[in-house]
Amino acid sequence: MLLAYGFLRKVFEVFERYQTPIDMITTSEVAVSLTIDDTKNLSKILADLNEFGSVVVDTDQTIICVVGDFLASKSGYAARVLNALKDIPIRMIAYGGSPNNISILVNANLKKAALNALHQGLFLNNQES
Amino acid sequence: MLLAYGFLRKVFEVFERYQTPIDMITTSEVAVSLTIDDTKNLSKILADLNEFGSVVVDTDQTIICVVGDFLASKSGYAARVLNALKDIPIRMIAYGGSPNNISILVNANLKKAALNALHQGLFLNNQES
Repeated sequence: MLLAYGFLRKVFEVFERYQTPIDMITTSEVAVSLTIDDTKNLSKILADLNEFGSVVVDTDQTIICVVGDFLASKSGYAARVLNALKDIPIRMIAYGGSPNNISILVNANLKKAALNALHQGLFLNNQES
Repeated sequence: MLLAYGFLRKVFEVFERYQTPIDMITTSEVAVSLTIDDTKNLSKILADLNEFGSVVVDTDQTIICVVGDFLASKSGYAARVLNALKDIPIRMIAYGGSPNNISILVNANLKKAALNALHQGLFLNNQES
């Protein structure tokens, strides 16, 4: 985070303390957003995290991963994926952890619509995208 | 990371040990990608990280942040940003840490081209995007 070290170690230590794996992470300049699947210890995690800053919880979210050969030397892949999803509100995007995966977080009630939009945009409209 | 806790704490503890702030993070299912500006202790950081897995270093990268009111309830913002950059190879994308920021990592020699493409795509071609 902006000119600070140690903050992230403290944040992730909380999840380790409660044996809760993290699935997806993105950051902005001074904030970190992450997802967990196992919410058994969520209230304890929140209590500990609140010592470091303000925390917001969004529930009922779905991670969609688009898997392919997205070499960083090539361009346009992310635009194709995001174009396909242009009518779906997106909560998080993570790309770059691996060249083979773009992870998108959407509200769970939009999962089917998002998957259909990706199918339409990436496989049925190849000539347009 | 996939069903594992503790890995991320160990990774970020290395950067804390060498007092090195992290600017941007994205993840895939089993990998984490992050950026640092201060490379003074990079060789020591790499030696420590190599204990946990394989590490690759890309140098001469530039973070570009697009700042605006990207409420997660609205759609299409990311598509507009990525469309503008569709001819620029992208190394990382992070969105969701805050609703006001999309961070993009590109090779430093593409910084000017990326900024021009964003200006063209977001401000000059509003009717098309």
